[in-house]
Amino acid sequence: MKAAIIGATGYTGFELIKILLKHPKIQISSITSDTYAGTPYSALYPQLTEIFDKEIEPNDYEKVANNSDIVFLCLPHAASMEAANFFYQKGKMVIDLSADFRYSETTIYETTYKTKHKYPELCKEAAYGIPEIFKKDIQNSKLLGNPGCYPTSIIIPLFPLLKEGLINEEIIADSKSGVSGAGKKPTEKTHFCEVNDDFKPYGVLSHRHESEIDFILKKANANIDLVFTPHLLPITRGIESTIYTKSDKNIDILHQCLFDYYSNSPFVRIYKDGRIPAIKNVANTNYIDIALFKRGEKVVIISCIDNLVKGASGQAVQNMNIMLDFNETLGLL
Amino acid sequence: MKAAIIGATGYTGFELIKILLKHPKIQISSITSDTYAGTPYSALYPQLTEIFDKEIEPNDYEKVANNSDIVFLCLPHAASMEAANFFYQKGKMVIDLSADFRYSETTIYETTYKTKHKYPELCKEAAYGIPEIFKKDIQNSKLLGNPGCYPTSIIIPLFPLLKEGLINEEIIADSKSGVSGAGKKPTEKTHFCEVNDDFKPYGVLSHRHESEIDFILKKANANIDLVFTPHLLPITRGIESTIYTKSDKNIDILHQCLFDYYSNSPFVRIYKDGRIPAIKNVANTNYIDIALFKRGEKVVIISCIDNLVKGASGQAVQNMNIMLDFNETLGLL
Amino acid sequence: MKAAIIGATGYTGFELIKILLKHPKIQISSITSDTYAGTPYSALYPQLTEIFDKEIEPNDYEKVANNSDIVFLCLPHAASMEAANFFYQKGKMVIDLSADFRYSETTIYETTYKTKHKYPELCKEAAYGIPEIFKKDIQNSKLLGNPGCYPTSIIIPLFPLLKEGLINEEIIADSKSGVSGAGKKPTEKTHFCEVNDDFKPYGVLSHRHESEIDFILKKANANIDLVFTPHLLPITRGIESTIYTKSDKNIDILHQCLFDYYSNSPFVRIYKDGRIPAIKNVANTNYIDIALFKRGEKVVIISCIDNLVKGASGQAVQNMNIMLDFNETLGLL
Amino acid sequence: MKAAIIGATGYTGFELIKILLKHPKIQISSITSDTYAGTPYSALYPQLTEIFDKEIEPNDYEKVANNSDIVFLCLPHAASMEAANFFYQKGKMVIDLSADFRYSETTIYETTYKTKHKYPELCKEAAYGIPEIFKKDIQNSKLLGNPGCYPTSIIIPLFPLLKEGLINEEIIADSKSGVSGAGKKPTEKTHFCEVNDDFKPYGVLSHRHESEIDFILKKANANIDLVFTPHLLPITRGIESTIYTKSDKNIDILHQCLFDYYSNSPFVRIYKDGRIPAIKNVANTNYIDIALFKRGEKVVIISCIDNLVKGASGQAVQNMNIMLDFNETLGLL
Repeated sequence: MKAAIIGATGYTGFELIKILLKHPKIQISSITSDTYAGTPYSALYPQLTEIFDKEIEPNDYEKVANNSDIVFLCLPHAASMEAANFFYQKGKMVIDLSADFRYSETTIYETTYKTKHKYPELCKEAAYGIPEIFKKDIQNSKLLGNPGCYPTSIIIPLFPLLKEGLINEEIIADSKSGVSGAGKKPTEKTHFCEVNDDFKPYGVLSHRHESEIDFILKKANANIDLVFTPHLLPITRGIESTIYTKSDKNIDILHQCLFDYYSNSPFVRIYKDGRIPAIKNVANTNYIDIALFKRGEKVVIISCIDNLVKGASGQAVQNMNIMLDFNETLGLL
Repeated sequence: MKAAIIGATGYTGFELIKILLKHPKIQISSITSDTYAGTPYSALYPQLTEIFDKEIEPNDYEKVANNSDIVFLCLPHAASMEAANFFYQKGKMVIDLSADFRYSETTIYETTYKTKHKYPELCKEAAYGIPEIFKKDIQNSKLLGNPGCYPTSIIIPLFPLLKEGLINEEIIADSKSGVSGAGKKPTEKTHFCEVNDDFKPYGVLSHRHESEIDFILKKANANIDLVFTPHLLPITRGIESTIYTKSDKNIDILHQCLFDYYSNSPFVRIYKDGRIPAIKNVANTNYIDIALFKRGEKVVIISCIDNLVKGASGQAVQNMNIMLDFNETLGLL
Repeated sequence: MKAAIIGATGYTGFELIKILLKHPKIQISSITSDTYAGTPYSALYPQLTEIFDKEIEPNDYEKVANNSDIVFLCLPHAASMEAANFFYQKGKMVIDLSADFRYSETTIYETTYKTKHKYPELCKEAAYGIPEIFKKDIQNSKLLGNPGCYPTSIIIPLFPLLKEGLINEEIIADSKSGVSGAGKKPTEKTHFCEVNDDFKPYGVLSHRHESEIDFILKKANANIDLVFTPHLLPITRGIESTIYTKSDKNIDILHQCLFDYYSNSPFVRIYKDGRIPAIKNVANTNYIDIALFKRGEKVVIISCIDNLVKGASGQAVQNMNIMLDFNETLGLL
Repeated sequence: MKAAIIGATGYTGFELIKILLKHPKIQISSITSDTYAGTPYSALYPQLTEIFDKEIEPNDYEKVANNSDIVFLCLPHAASMEAANFFYQKGKMVIDLSADFRYSETTIYETTYKTKHKYPELCKEAAYGIPEIFKKDIQNSKLLGNPGCYPTSIIIPLFPLLKEGLINEEIIADSKSGVSGAGKKPTEKTHFCEVNDDFKPYGVLSHRHESEIDFILKKANANIDLVFTPHLLPITRGIESTIYTKSDKNIDILHQCLFDYYSNSPFVRIYKDGRIPAIKNVANTNYIDIALFKRGEKVVIISCIDNLVKGASGQAVQNMNIMLDFNETLGLL
């Protein structure tokens, strides 16, 4: 199968390329970027010198469509929907890494991203790409909204527990992310001297991922009541979420619920016996590591992912594998 | 006035020395450590070459007592109480940076630190050294229990709000600390390769500082119900605490409460207008920066301190200034 | 005395302000920046909240001149010479932190910085601000070219040895600098994700500081033959230079030369007995630490400074102290 | 083929296991450590949870020999020679990652490592494992001394140039390494708070790798005259070496020499056109990236490797592939 990557020069594009280069059934047919058209990809990412020197093409969608079966969109929010519609109408399989197809209800998208959605009907067709929860939707889909990084780290541990009614709907998620989550564009906030030796929250009570987490968790329990605080870690990659809720059930029941729900999920690792997940354990992998602690009614859940792999490009390839009926783990172990 | 530092070679001892060297009214009379006795201090901390080459003495308390007015104890928990009693009986002013005199009720201390307290009556005499809250106790005291770093970052923002009954007693404190909080002794957990690029919680639902926070906040509101989770940041110094609770009061009322309570506290800075505290802003200072956010009933409070300054040695000197009737900020700006 | 800082919002401006705020004889009268005019300084650097909230002014030089005795220029190369001339003609004491007045021979400046120098006669008046070597020039000067950071770390250890003919003129200087040396403006090269976990040389055989080092060392020995390689360290501040040359003299003679030459230099610390300088030992100080090693004819010299203090703003204040006949160390210990 | 790893719990053991787990023709039969015998490997390195939970065995060499074809020794210097002799006599293929078999002349080993070598005759049989230079020796060998990390980064760029007589024999190698090179054992020197924000040289004019580099480069040119200075970088992995020498040849001739010599070496990448190698470009890979700069007679060569991969375990697997007549790159791309 031939895969194209639109907007291939950011961190998610780079990660996607590194994964696809090791994927046994995929050939990268096109990589595009208007800014860098004409340059070999390895000039931007010298790590890939002699490994992937392919020339970056301009965003000529017609040409890309003629030359690919699957199209990954690594475009900014709002810019993505146009490209998605184009390739979808051409009959291509589309995996969108932006937020444009994560909400089947476009009103919430429009409020959150302050943009009119041009293709609300397409949103209804799109699957939400957490394979551990929505595998059937994904299998039957030709258009996929790949989840946000923070939402992935929060939804996976909570969904089964909420669905089974085992935990309280009042949830606090205190999340911390590496700097690559802010993208490759240089800004004051990503200057080395600003981030190094520092730590702080941002987007307090106003981050856009909160509505995505809320929208998806409502499918498990309509009464979900969420507070989400993201923080910026002085590391390149990885997310840790510490999640607080309550439960009147025994901890073994909560554990068992997670074990049962994810018994066939190769990338979910649930820790027991007091072992604590760490970003280091999942960095550069597609795993999500989860642990659950309880004292009285108080529940603390810890989860860790790599924001660029399970939180973006790795999960995108996992979704592609499912859409193409490949083994879910192909290219990801 | 002459000050001695017992156990001067750890990170809090080093910080204390750097502060006292710039203090206009204090002379460092003795620094002790059995391990390093006989070495010049600057051999351990070459930063102080030609600045503080004073020789480290063994722990001869009799000799130290003859040569000092104030004694700072930078000893491990449990080891400290013996020294504190000795110097206190000799009529010295004692500032203990361990946990041994933070609890006036020794049963809680004994449960938390799994050690019998030999001087419960002394605990009753000791002041708890958060000057912004317990200034009167401190002024009248000759023995002071200097607070833990995490507790300082959590108690200061919450105490007035709880005392005035403006927030709910159910509190979640999600705290993150730099590695110096774990001390100078090399361990697997503090190895550079383990900490660099990593982030994780530790002591989940079991950290010793939880009982200290709980014990002190009960003085503001007896019904306090706390969950506290510490995390290890890949930075050397600084603590950020993100604190969750609820309130049915307007955010202006909460803000006003903090402003009023801390109007005479030179080291408390309260941020408004959406500005967010950061560890960088307080690193190497004695400030605590606080911000408060609200949406519906949900309250999020952010606080930042330097764990070695406001969270340890800076606060110790602030307490000393008060005990000696000096200006509270002497040597600290 | 009243000091103005032109271009006060970069890292050297910030460092200068922090130092001057603690200087007992200086009052900061004006801080300017066209970009940030109208903002309180602490909005840019929240560390200084409640400490230095002074409003930033536009670059109205006439107004600044009326209100100050000393002017520090923290402007880009080439932009600085115009301001320097203006304030110098107004009779102000001028300390320029750019490269514009570091070369008394403007042809070398012009080749290196690819800019025509408009005031070559002023360059002849300017002192080169390494107080340890050019104190007399500085005392008699009203215009000072403050040295580059790399040159400071390399010239101080070499100058006496070259002048006394104790070492070979063939010199290799392998230097490594923290990221703040690249300035505050966000670029791809200073993005956290690019710098973190990385290390590399830059400007190999083509860095502009090479001509400055060469020009100044020629005053010690006209036959100097230098190779200089700068590297980018994943830290915020500090420079380490490892310098290679040869000598047929005994190491004690080399040591003695440095000790004698710098016997009255309070900020030069020379290590003996195999002790090795480290960036940590000089960070946030105005010290330069130096050690010298020898095996056969081979000489290895190590030096460390803080690039923003001894390599920029600290040295600027040291120079000001000398120009104003203050104690050299005022505000710097 | 079945491979055993003796002393599997350090950083080189961990790296070796990660590589071998992806190697299509190798099965890991035994992993040993007296300290951790009985524990699953993933308890030490939770990254490998559910991937490699194999139990660590004690150092029962007889049992290991019965169960393996190849033995990797990740033991400390001196401890390794005994194990190497044992497995070699049993007819196993032995790859030793310590220094014990890097020198065919044991007197130099004994002086450098201050240890008597018990098996000098075995040293004569051992190949030195830089495949790019000594491939034939390696192909015919059953015992291999895997090179040191610094030597790998310095020998590969210099060997062809020295052999062809294109550069001067006077060499200065200024090298910088990440902290993993110091091993997993916690020490003061590897404490996060000591390394973070710091940078410094160590072992100046006295590091053990100097004699290894010297010994091997003498095979290219007997008159080699080397100064080597290692430095500690605040990063986990990677080595950069900046190498200084002279040449009266045109830079194109030097470049051509390297291109020709390494035309069949899949892991050597030579940069041209002013591109500069960086640790980031080779981290987690088996590549060595090299660039060469020249001005007049002065030559500056830059090389970068990952100290744990090309500098240790990756090169060990590359050597194994050659010894077993596999494709050199198997498991390494």
